[in-house]
Amino acid sequence: MSRQDLALANRILANEGVVDAFGHVSLRHPDRPGHFLLSRSVSPELVTPDDIMVFGPDGQAADGDTRAPYLERFIHAAIYEQRPDVVAVVHSHAHDLIPFGVTGTEVRPLIHVAGPLGTVPVWDIADRFGETSLLVTNIEQGRDLAARLGSGRAVLMRGHGGVVVGDSLRAAVIMAVYLQVNAGLDLKARQLGPVRYLSDGEVELSFDAILAEVPARRAWDYFKRRVDTHA
Amino acid sequence: MSRQDLALANRILANEGVVDAFGHVSLRHPDRPGHFLLSRSVSPELVTPDDIMVFGPDGQAADGDTRAPYLERFIHAAIYEQRPDVVAVVHSHAHDLIPFGVTGTEVRPLIHVAGPLGTVPVWDIADRFGETSLLVTNIEQGRDLAARLGSGRAVLMRGHGGVVVGDSLRAAVIMAVYLQVNAGLDLKARQLGPVRYLSDGEVELSFDAILAEVPARRAWDYFKRRVDTHA
Amino acid sequence: MSRQDLALANRILANEGVVDAFGHVSLRHPDRPGHFLLSRSVSPELVTPDDIMVFGPDGQAADGDTRAPYLERFIHAAIYEQRPDVVAVVHSHAHDLIPFGVTGTEVRPLIHVAGPLGTVPVWDIADRFGETSLLVTNIEQGRDLAARLGSGRAVLMRGHGGVVVGDSLRAAVIMAVYLQVNAGLDLKARQLGPVRYLSDGEVELSFDAILAEVPARRAWDYFKRRVDTHA
Amino acid sequence: MSRQDLALANRILANEGVVDAFGHVSLRHPDRPGHFLLSRSVSPELVTPDDIMVFGPDGQAADGDTRAPYLERFIHAAIYEQRPDVVAVVHSHAHDLIPFGVTGTEVRPLIHVAGPLGTVPVWDIADRFGETSLLVTNIEQGRDLAARLGSGRAVLMRGHGGVVVGDSLRAAVIMAVYLQVNAGLDLKARQLGPVRYLSDGEVELSFDAILAEVPARRAWDYFKRRVDTHA
Repeated sequence: MSRQDLALANRILANEGVVDAFGHVSLRHPDRPGHFLLSRSVSPELVTPDDIMVFGPDGQAADGDTRAPYLERFIHAAIYEQRPDVVAVVHSHAHDLIPFGVTGTEVRPLIHVAGPLGTVPVWDIADRFGETSLLVTNIEQGRDLAARLGSGRAVLMRGHGGVVVGDSLRAAVIMAVYLQVNAGLDLKARQLGPVRYLSDGEVELSFDAILAEVPARRAWDYFKRRVDTHA
Repeated sequence: MSRQDLALANRILANEGVVDAFGHVSLRHPDRPGHFLLSRSVSPELVTPDDIMVFGPDGQAADGDTRAPYLERFIHAAIYEQRPDVVAVVHSHAHDLIPFGVTGTEVRPLIHVAGPLGTVPVWDIADRFGETSLLVTNIEQGRDLAARLGSGRAVLMRGHGGVVVGDSLRAAVIMAVYLQVNAGLDLKARQLGPVRYLSDGEVELSFDAILAEVPARRAWDYFKRRVDTHA
Repeated sequence: MSRQDLALANRILANEGVVDAFGHVSLRHPDRPGHFLLSRSVSPELVTPDDIMVFGPDGQAADGDTRAPYLERFIHAAIYEQRPDVVAVVHSHAHDLIPFGVTGTEVRPLIHVAGPLGTVPVWDIADRFGETSLLVTNIEQGRDLAARLGSGRAVLMRGHGGVVVGDSLRAAVIMAVYLQVNAGLDLKARQLGPVRYLSDGEVELSFDAILAEVPARRAWDYFKRRVDTHA
Repeated sequence: MSRQDLALANRILANEGVVDAFGHVSLRHPDRPGHFLLSRSVSPELVTPDDIMVFGPDGQAADGDTRAPYLERFIHAAIYEQRPDVVAVVHSHAHDLIPFGVTGTEVRPLIHVAGPLGTVPVWDIADRFGETSLLVTNIEQGRDLAARLGSGRAVLMRGHGGVVVGDSLRAAVIMAVYLQVNAGLDLKARQLGPVRYLSDGEVELSFDAILAEVPARRAWDYFKRRVDTHA
């Protein structure tokens, strides 16, 4: 995965509505331990490979790069620190996550393509940090968020959005898309009656079905095509 | 109906949101008994005539074609086996079907263009096969799904999507589009009060009104135009 | 208003989702009493000026035109017959009308731009004609629908769509667009509590505000622009 | 900020669905006290720099400009009169505001990007002016609306839309977009249970987070890109 792929991931997420003016996606640096790749401060829709910067474990720009970074880069720094298995992190601004976060409602998978997410908890920055702008602006806040994520694949942020992680860039992007799809459908399903969510065993078995090489590439190619035909 | 038509059906279904990265559509082979045409493993949005493969009654690729097939081709194999009247099969991933499947709610036609679907039952793979990835990955699962379809035109798959069949490619595609429209509208109508669905007699009379040569061609030309102007 | 305008009206209505593969719009013939202009049987999205035919008061094609007409042209014939003030008729297939029709719920204006519609009643073809395909296929059915419309501007058709009339082509098109907008918003508003609809006096005063020359032209130009930039 | 920026603001608001055929956006004149810039009567989607007119404190066109103005220019005149801190005014026709206005429901921020709006009250023109077309057509009505706005950032207009103000053109546009986003999400969130809205302290802290130079420019560039790629 290259800077080209990360730039494409930005545009895919914008095109699918996972991010809007805000939100971002990062990639663990393939060679430099504890470092990660993340765009400078610009909307994901506009990110090009040249916008990608390198950040260190403390969330500070590496190599003397003085371009303006995202204020919330600490989300990424803290998760790469606590989760060695994570290769990519999406900070989602998907609108359909908001109703769940602000009502303290976990998102649970009801559609097989969202199965790998398992149960997605809600993190409220106010629980530990009181009144803030709701933004994650330092490493302590990032670590608190990462702790709520735990060993999971996603976590909601109350009144803000959420985070989705993956062991590959594709996995993180695909799961970020289907988290919002699943949330939107759960709202509708509840209108009809009690919902049967995926069982633990079904969640377990869904990993390969959606995130193995073949289906993940198929989904990625599909999202890429949509970027190409929209633009 | 040719491979060109089948490729176009793929693009129509993608453009109307019936399929996304996943889902597919097949056509009974016009000349080889028990065989059917289906794309290799690629998202419907990207299917071209050259992607179409031939499969035998057992769901295995014919003519030594070694390209990667869809894992779920057994949906098609089992239905062509049990339903000699069926000429085309759509495996729908339409989002609006999900709320009904996960709550065990049948879809019933409330709009005349969805009349030919009649009452659409829900199939839950877990009833007979326990915990799975929710994918139909062998002929036994396909046959169980086909049994639930029975002599009907459509069946929902819990947490996954659904299947729509037709005695022509156009009929299957048009009904797959209107199944999702009808499902979405039923969710809204229930908010207003008890819904008057089409009566059995109205369902019967709706067949010609929507699936006769003239209206079916009109709908097909319309969906085709939308593909052309979107791309 | 010319055939060019009527063709444009077709494309506007398709672009705004008032019609899909089905539905149509007609114009009273400016010179021939009791006659009206309506496209041959083709989806509104595809209508060009050359597709426009002339029909007589009985709903039959005039001038020996043998092209296939819409089955439901009797909707238009009956309304022009009973309503001398009506200059244009839209047969709407707007999806958001369906929940109201199938629950027997009148649409009442809650947004000022829909004010001129007043209260929109529901017509159920089954009340007088029993089980049908829900299509209006003869002049008796058309007259029954026109009677339900009465002196109003719109009427819903259960499980099918609706009709919107106007004293100009622009008025009918604009009101058809805002009928669907109003219906969709009413569904949402009811979730929040009792709705304050426009009073009778507000309805009366809304006519000039939205349908006078200046605002009607502004709306028409806007819808035309959307057709131009979408195509 | 120039006429070019104001024309772009018009197109951004149209593209994001904040305005449709109707609605408008104005800018306080940078040099002439009490005057403001506002397009002639044309839909925002079509506004070009040449359409911008200058209006005086009484809402009358300045400099002998005889082009047809918006009927509702008094909204702007009254607000600039009462609020010296306001630099730009958006008259929103965002559909998602309607359900709140017609049920007398305040909009409260639940997503951080809408935080600066604070609590948005409802103004009903009928309270003081009785039955009208719901349009603001004179300076008295404008002043009554401005009084309801008070020192706030936004106010809903029952059955019509709303107004959003800002201390810059960007701020007004961004807040107008997020007001509709927030309203739409509140409708959904209420389905899940009691909603936790932003606290007063969180509202206070959200100003810089979303409206400071860096985030405001990022949002503006994003909305501009969407206009460019859509057109």
